[in-house]
Amino acid sequence: MTLWQRLMTPRSVAIVGASADPSKTSGRPVGYLLKHGFRGEIYPVNPRASEIEGLRCYPDIASLPQAPDVALILLGAERTQDAVRELAARGTGAAIVLASGYAEAGEAGAARQQALRAAAGSMRILGPNTIGLVNLTDGITLSASGALELGQLHRGEIGLVSQSGGILGALLSRATARGIGFSKLVSTSNEADLELADFIDMLADDPATRVIALYVESIRNPAAFLRAARKAAAAGKPVVAFKIGRSESGAQAAASHTGALAGADRMYDALFEHAGVLRAQTFADLLDMPAALAAGRHLDGKRVAVLTSTGGAGTLVADSLGLAGFDLPAPDAATAAALRALQEGAQAVLDRNPIDVTLAGLQPTLLRKIIRVLLDSASYDALVVIVGSSGVGQPELMAGALRDSMGEGGKPVMAYVSPHAPAAAEVLSRYGIPAFHAPESVGAAMSALRQIAVTHEATAPAQATPLRTPLRTPLRTPLPTPLPAGSLNEAEAKALFAHFGVPGAREQVVHDGAGARRAAAALGPRVALKLLSAKITHKSEVGGVALGLDPDTVEAALARMRADVAAHTGRAPQAFLVQQMSGGVAEVILGVRKDPLGTALLIGMGGVVAELVRDTVLLFLPDDGAPPSRETVRAALQRLQTWPLLDGYRGRPKADVAALVDAVIAFAAMALALGPRLVEAEINPLFVREPGQGVVAADGVAVLR
Amino acid sequence: MTLWQRLMTPRSVAIVGASADPSKTSGRPVGYLLKHGFRGEIYPVNPRASEIEGLRCYPDIASLPQAPDVALILLGAERTQDAVRELAARGTGAAIVLASGYAEAGEAGAARQQALRAAAGSMRILGPNTIGLVNLTDGITLSASGALELGQLHRGEIGLVSQSGGILGALLSRATARGIGFSKLVSTSNEADLELADFIDMLADDPATRVIALYVESIRNPAAFLRAARKAAAAGKPVVAFKIGRSESGAQAAASHTGALAGADRMYDALFEHAGVLRAQTFADLLDMPAALAAGRHLDGKRVAVLTSTGGAGTLVADSLGLAGFDLPAPDAATAAALRALQEGAQAVLDRNPIDVTLAGLQPTLLRKIIRVLLDSASYDALVVIVGSSGVGQPELMAGALRDSMGEGGKPVMAYVSPHAPAAAEVLSRYGIPAFHAPESVGAAMSALRQIAVTHEATAPAQATPLRTPLRTPLRTPLPTPLPAGSLNEAEAKALFAHFGVPGAREQVVHDGAGARRAAAALGPRVALKLLSAKITHKSEVGGVALGLDPDTVEAALARMRADVAAHTGRAPQAFLVQQMSGGVAEVILGVRKDPLGTALLIGMGGVVAELVRDTVLLFLPDDGAPPSRETVRAALQRLQTWPLLDGYRGRPKADVAALVDAVIAFAAMALALGPRLVEAEINPLFVREPGQGVVAADGVAVLR
Repeated sequence: MTLWQRLMTPRSVAIVGASADPSKTSGRPVGYLLKHGFRGEIYPVNPRASEIEGLRCYPDIASLPQAPDVALILLGAERTQDAVRELAARGTGAAIVLASGYAEAGEAGAARQQALRAAAGSMRILGPNTIGLVNLTDGITLSASGALELGQLHRGEIGLVSQSGGILGALLSRATARGIGFSKLVSTSNEADLELADFIDMLADDPATRVIALYVESIRNPAAFLRAARKAAAAGKPVVAFKIGRSESGAQAAASHTGALAGADRMYDALFEHAGVLRAQTFADLLDMPAALAAGRHLDGKRVAVLTSTGGAGTLVADSLGLAGFDLPAPDAATAAALRALQEGAQAVLDRNPIDVTLAGLQPTLLRKIIRVLLDSASYDALVVIVGSSGVGQPELMAGALRDSMGEGGKPVMAYVSPHAPAAAEVLSRYGIPAFHAPESVGAAMSALRQIAVTHEATAPAQATPLRTPLRTPLRTPLPTPLPAGSLNEAEAKALFAHFGVPGAREQVVHDGAGARRAAAALGPRVALKLLSAKITHKSEVGGVALGLDPDTVEAALARMRADVAAHTGRAPQAFLVQQMSGGVAEVILGVRKDPLGTALLIGMGGVVAELVRDTVLLFLPDDGAPPSRETVRAALQRLQTWPLLDGYRGRPKADVAALVDAVIAFAAMALALGPRLVEAEINPLFVREPGQGVVAADGVAVLR
Repeated sequence: MTLWQRLMTPRSVAIVGASADPSKTSGRPVGYLLKHGFRGEIYPVNPRASEIEGLRCYPDIASLPQAPDVALILLGAERTQDAVRELAARGTGAAIVLASGYAEAGEAGAARQQALRAAAGSMRILGPNTIGLVNLTDGITLSASGALELGQLHRGEIGLVSQSGGILGALLSRATARGIGFSKLVSTSNEADLELADFIDMLADDPATRVIALYVESIRNPAAFLRAARKAAAAGKPVVAFKIGRSESGAQAAASHTGALAGADRMYDALFEHAGVLRAQTFADLLDMPAALAAGRHLDGKRVAVLTSTGGAGTLVADSLGLAGFDLPAPDAATAAALRALQEGAQAVLDRNPIDVTLAGLQPTLLRKIIRVLLDSASYDALVVIVGSSGVGQPELMAGALRDSMGEGGKPVMAYVSPHAPAAAEVLSRYGIPAFHAPESVGAAMSALRQIAVTHEATAPAQATPLRTPLRTPLRTPLPTPLPAGSLNEAEAKALFAHFGVPGAREQVVHDGAGARRAAAALGPRVALKLLSAKITHKSEVGGVALGLDPDTVEAALARMRADVAAHTGRAPQAFLVQQMSGGVAEVILGVRKDPLGTALLIGMGGVVAELVRDTVLLFLPDDGAPPSRETVRAALQRLQTWPLLDGYRGRPKADVAALVDAVIAFAAMALALGPRLVEAEINPLFVREPGQGVVAADGVAVLR
């Protein structure tokens, strides 16, 4: 049996610390299992009871008749470790540890968690500090939490994994009230062993799960997360994640809540994008987006019909869809004619969308036909039905009409419920029609469908075939062996970049005025003179940069620079760089960002204005992966607000984007090749010249370890 | 009696078209009035009934015993106009017209609406196409809509005005379910006469109303809106508006829904900002922000304590508050000591915020004391209490403890309800504790309190004393009389700007090479030569700009330009501009934007990058107002992302911001002075030089009518 099978459909479950008193928390789990007809063996373990709920109770783990597939440990932190050791020794598949007082409770707790992990040996652990898991598909609860009691939960196709037990409970109660169902529910909490990625991986294989929803406080193992997310994508299962810690206050709260180190929020964006994971922007989105995706209908375009019997709410939803980038075209002639034929006598205005059918709200037969016309219309890719107060009184009628006319696997259909009408929304959801109460949710849910469709259409093949073609820019310079450690000076840094394929400005290192004159004559007509130092990074602030020199002026400039720098730093510099003046159509910044979450490539427009408006994109670089593809880099560049500067904006010359793309890939390849040895690297500016003229790194820094 | 009194607390109400059948919609209004003990006269009007609900029914308006204060007209559009005419003739105060089929229904409907307005004479009209109004303070319903039936509604201090009847109903049902109460409710809908501004004005005077909430589709009369909003602000009553039509789809839907012409959404932002109106960003905010403001507690700073018994939800709220710009400091030593003293024996961790008191959730006495400590703490300006599943079972207990410990008029207190628990949220709201179900709502509501507080502290005095001090830049040039109409050429446009106090570059108009040489010698050393034309606005695209010339090169340049422009346009130009080359620390764009909503001043950073990222701010210029104050202009400049470019970013020289501020005010004064004669005006670029050096308009366009 696989770990998944032992955890989710165990043949035998030990409840360690089970109480015979059903009013106690520790008295619940046995009852939960029995109530829903668990067909395997249940072994309550408690030295002070001989029977619990009619089942034989065992005094200790040693006396169990066999190793259980899974053990639910209800003991306090002090006694849990021994129980874990004994369960592991018996060959138990996995232990679910509910006790708290581990990594979330300071240093002593972190040490206790390490000891717990050690005691488990090869046995797997869920928790500690978890509220457990539920397999709704098969009706098995492994939890002591009332929130996870199967009785009120709906079975569905969303697998939910949460790093917070409390939030899992909150999401469940909210989803249940809305008629949204789940396949599997897991709270991973402290993740001493089993973590988010393990459950994403397992859910990707679970035939009962269609969509995976994640509540994320911190991703401890980004590489495993990426692998699991890719597996889910390959299985056609969208992953939606809500991650907290977007603000400093939130990040601090999350760190003290779980004891995990948080990465920068933008790095999570980059990681999720790389992994094809949809990010929920609001807490409500974490239910809304999966609910829409679980309906399993494909959104082929951006044209949405909004059918309403109440003008105000239709407008509200139209606005939300418009803001989310969707179009609401009026019905084409054929669609309008078909609608008109259905409503003889009625003065329906059919030149607009939202399509207002004031009379149809309470006539299910007519409503069914109108929905069929809109779903069959060549003008629309999706349908949103507004439920006004007239539809609320008989929610089954409205929901039934919708369900009957939707057919199987066609265009997406959603509902917006305008008045406060939780019962109507609940019925609609249970009937397979995602129903929302906030107009913004309609936009977010529709966007999720569109993102998944676009990902399937466009980037899936590109991701499957990472770049293997040779770069246009050949490897230029030999790499010094062994590589130096510490801060490189500008010439060394650019030599490193050039080795990996990012060409630098032509330049020579000189030590005196005569050398500078010779270099200027060789590199001219105009050169820059720069202080060469691995320590001083802000050269211009100490007088270490002079531009537009020629062989006749460079000697004096060098003498002045020597004096200026000595005056600023107390030491006369020994080495200088004479560099051919370069320029281009545009200047770009390339950087490598290291973060607890991993490595990312920063691409930004250069110059002070772009710097102030932070016009940058981040591309996640998985440690074991290939550099990004040309398509990915080009798409990233096009996401810059200032992309038109590279693309011939208003009659300006175009830039050599092909060369820039290659340079970005080369820079990424360098970061991957150097791996943990690379601490920091940045090119600023990288001049991008006219098409065919390539790029030139004019300045750069690199720090190795 | 005032209009407000006649409408809201009428002594007599005529129900025109009342039905004796209470199951009909037109049978409801009389019943609504009677049920809630209306103490004035009720006159049902219906020729086919003699008595309705025990009241004498009148066959027609002519036979009414007196002119009613208000009439509710339940007739169809065809018969409504006659009724309105007769009511007006009798001296009725106002008529509420429910019929639809007016401006929302195309051209014929718009004509019908005009006729209705004419028939009313001096009698005021609410509607048509309205669902009416409710005075919850005094228990009077003037509506046939079940949504406005008083029975289930809570009395409160929020006055709600909606341009959509359907949305009014939806908001009410949502608010009622959450325990949020209202003072007055009005649906203005088509606004043939009474409009948003009238009701804002009246609510500003209503002692029962503390906060005004608006659902806006289109503001038909911005000047009246501004006056009313200022009156509300002066009365200390915050105004919160949700406006749809933010997207093109939404704007189209709104236009076809109400037949009103929409302004650009950014203009609404500028108008709301000018009026001190808070804009609700989501539909939920339109209830959440007023609910928080109606509690009437003042937020003095940005430090929030989050009290929780469930870590996950505390983190979620902390993150939302952090994103909204609030700080969550850990308890200071005195606060921590006070908290520790309350929980002897408990291992409370008190070095962090959210403050986790796992045990306190169900002990009201302890909870009360903890809340007191946090509200008395010098570390916090507000408190958010998280209600977890433990607090949900006995919502009265939790809400009661909160209410008891809050005191009167102290720091703001809010609640976040983590599980699905509508009853708990409802009780909390009714007890005066704004309670939210979305973490984002906590951030939005707290921000609303902060915005109101900051507005009171800072801008209220500045608004009260508009600029009266003389501008630093004196009026330079005489204004030609009469002013020319049509497109001005560059020289004329800049002369116009200079007249109002925005200095232009030194320049001369020339007609031939010799003139150009003389001008260059006078203006040199370097000059620009430009085509002078009122018709050709993109001069450089037809070869009409040459830079960096001197007296020796300008003649040939003029000859070339004449030929180039002739080749491009088919006509040889007759006039040219020789202009002193200018530059500055930064370049800025100043523009006047005309919109259906009014006039606004656009201020943006110049240059191609800033243009691409749209780094601009809009300042609304009310037609009858003064130019913005120096403080307002300076604050607007500081909102530019690229503001640091004007402020000595990274060692760059500072710009003459004082002169720039004066130039902006001068440009605004020009727009106000020219009024509707000004069609378009823009300076691009306006060079801002170093401090003391002023500004120079290097190019500009103006169109007058």
